[in-house]
Amino acid sequence: MQTQDFQKYIYLDNAATTFPKAPGVKEAVNVFLKNIGAIPGRSGHALSIQSGRILFQTRRLLADLLGLKDCKRVLFTLNATMAINTLLQGFLKPNDIVVTTQMEHNAIKRPLNALKETLNIEVREIPCNSEHVVDLKSAKELLKGAKLLACTHINNVSGAITPIEELAKIAHANGGKILLDGAQSVGCVPMQEIMQQVDFLALSAHKGLLSPMGVGALLMSDSFDFNTLSPLVFGGTGSASEEEIQPYFLPDKFEGGTPNMHGISGLKVGLEWIIQKGVENIHAYELHLRNMLIQGLNNAKNIKIYHTKGDSSGILSLTILNCALSEAGMRLSNEYGIYVRVGLHCSPSSHKTLGSFTSGGTIRLSPGIFNTESEIETTIWALRHIAKN
Amino acid sequence: MQTQDFQKYIYLDNAATTFPKAPGVKEAVNVFLKNIGAIPGRSGHALSIQSGRILFQTRRLLADLLGLKDCKRVLFTLNATMAINTLLQGFLKPNDIVVTTQMEHNAIKRPLNALKETLNIEVREIPCNSEHVVDLKSAKELLKGAKLLACTHINNVSGAITPIEELAKIAHANGGKILLDGAQSVGCVPMQEIMQQVDFLALSAHKGLLSPMGVGALLMSDSFDFNTLSPLVFGGTGSASEEEIQPYFLPDKFEGGTPNMHGISGLKVGLEWIIQKGVENIHAYELHLRNMLIQGLNNAKNIKIYHTKGDSSGILSLTILNCALSEAGMRLSNEYGIYVRVGLHCSPSSHKTLGSFTSGGTIRLSPGIFNTESEIETTIWALRHIAKN
Repeated sequence: MQTQDFQKYIYLDNAATTFPKAPGVKEAVNVFLKNIGAIPGRSGHALSIQSGRILFQTRRLLADLLGLKDCKRVLFTLNATMAINTLLQGFLKPNDIVVTTQMEHNAIKRPLNALKETLNIEVREIPCNSEHVVDLKSAKELLKGAKLLACTHINNVSGAITPIEELAKIAHANGGKILLDGAQSVGCVPMQEIMQQVDFLALSAHKGLLSPMGVGALLMSDSFDFNTLSPLVFGGTGSASEEEIQPYFLPDKFEGGTPNMHGISGLKVGLEWIIQKGVENIHAYELHLRNMLIQGLNNAKNIKIYHTKGDSSGILSLTILNCALSEAGMRLSNEYGIYVRVGLHCSPSSHKTLGSFTSGGTIRLSPGIFNTESEIETTIWALRHIAKN
Repeated sequence: MQTQDFQKYIYLDNAATTFPKAPGVKEAVNVFLKNIGAIPGRSGHALSIQSGRILFQTRRLLADLLGLKDCKRVLFTLNATMAINTLLQGFLKPNDIVVTTQMEHNAIKRPLNALKETLNIEVREIPCNSEHVVDLKSAKELLKGAKLLACTHINNVSGAITPIEELAKIAHANGGKILLDGAQSVGCVPMQEIMQQVDFLALSAHKGLLSPMGVGALLMSDSFDFNTLSPLVFGGTGSASEEEIQPYFLPDKFEGGTPNMHGISGLKVGLEWIIQKGVENIHAYELHLRNMLIQGLNNAKNIKIYHTKGDSSGILSLTILNCALSEAGMRLSNEYGIYVRVGLHCSPSSHKTLGSFTSGGTIRLSPGIFNTESEIETTIWALRHIAKN
């Protein structure tokens, strides 16, 4: 795997945001800033048309990557969190039953808890087994009568992959729909047919898609009746401008206000690079780096690894029994130049399930496609050193 | 005023989005993409801290520009539309009375119309006089019993400036609060004390602040009890991560999910440039270009200008009586390389008031700080030519 000259530090915080971005992304943003600049779909001049074309092409690339036919069902937002909120707040009605899992990010937990108050929804949690994966038997019981299953695709603490195909079958058999939080999966694991399995997918450009912050998306399946979904944001769309009410058509109904074209122009190139590289190759390489970490640390004294034996992304969590979390994070950063995230990672329910909540969370290592084997070896050495091995 | 080498075309669509951006903005975005990259407020490593510092400094600059003491009351959003929705949807309760004007953008009209349905709010409109400015006598009557006045600061079709100081006094005297839509004013006209006059201000980075798309903000006055405002979006904040409910403190309560640091890093430099240049100088220069247009076209056959004699920004609208709008836009673009916006500009109520609704809107010329006098002269010549003068 090619190395980039980026060796003043070792960046292992790719689950927070990937860094660096895909080759060509910063150049594309620069070109937009320098030569294109205009708003899409509002004015008729050449720059506005060029901007609109980039917007359309990026929708098309995302739809193709994720198995969606109608790219108007790609709805751009600020981030995955806003995409999740768009679906939960726009789709749920008073007293609805929603099922989630015992290992969810606050991007799902917090809006659901807010909707408990405002809409009196019922929230049920599927328990997770010792491999950090939902228990399918319990899922069958809990999904009865549920309107929606809302869950993460890849846990942001342990890297465990949710068996979404099986879960989706159970939810659909019960007449429910599925919102998948793809913040940690899109671009990291192959998902060519995901939009045939789930009804809604929330994603973020700045993580696995190796693109700028400020762009998320909600994808709705081709068969979903989008008339049953209310927008989160209402405003000008450059369309139906004679109307003082939100347009009913896609994607405008859900995209009030100016889209982030500077970010989207970067996302287009990020997507092109990922498609050319092959998501399966990215996944294989990141897993390889994770496996190096596991092998290098498995027998280390005082280090406890929280990893699933099941399907996983490159994410790995651990604790050092003889070193406080904050001290470990600071030493990794200051002494070794290794940049990770320590703490609860906005995902308290995951830590409660993993058993790492009371100790304040974990040290999360999230290698990315641009990390090298040598960086991983250095990281293993540093962690062993801190744990006094 | 300094000229930039940007003469392949004449960009007069700055009210849609400014182009080019402030000097240094694209370099700042590039530096973030290349050297910083990290998420703020989540991880503890050097890059994350650097990112957090930029986020804080940008909040501080915005607060200083607009007369806000507590910069935690600058809440970042995707765009001004999302900022307006955050306030309207989070502040209004069932059966509330909201006052707006006869010359509003759909960014205000559409969410209010949606809230009529969901919350049964009452929406009253202050009529505008022949100078496109709200009638203060009517305002006094209409604001009685109103919880909120929501209106634009600068009309995006005619450039007319709303007499917000007087309006705010009337609203406050009646116990109401004021949401000001600053999409066309922030960065274009001096507003050093605006947050002492209004309660809420929505703004956009990519217009008058000469910065990237994908960043908006809602500012709340120092005295506003933010506990009475519900968030639009709930999610991870990197804070209070042990809690599965939204934090109650600022700015986290209103900023779930990853902020657009690539855009915000550009906004920081855009703000620094604007502060150094002086908003009063920017306003004076843009008004000078607008006055050149008015003087050059006032006596032209077949050209009708929609301008206020009152306070104004650089925006100017006109129609050509013997040339359809779409044809005029296309000829300006294709024959003369002059990029404007034609149509209703997401602001049907403005056109109804101005008398330009039934003809499908206006040709909007919105000169910016980087346009030259020579470009304006060329534009005058082209418009006269199209109108067969």
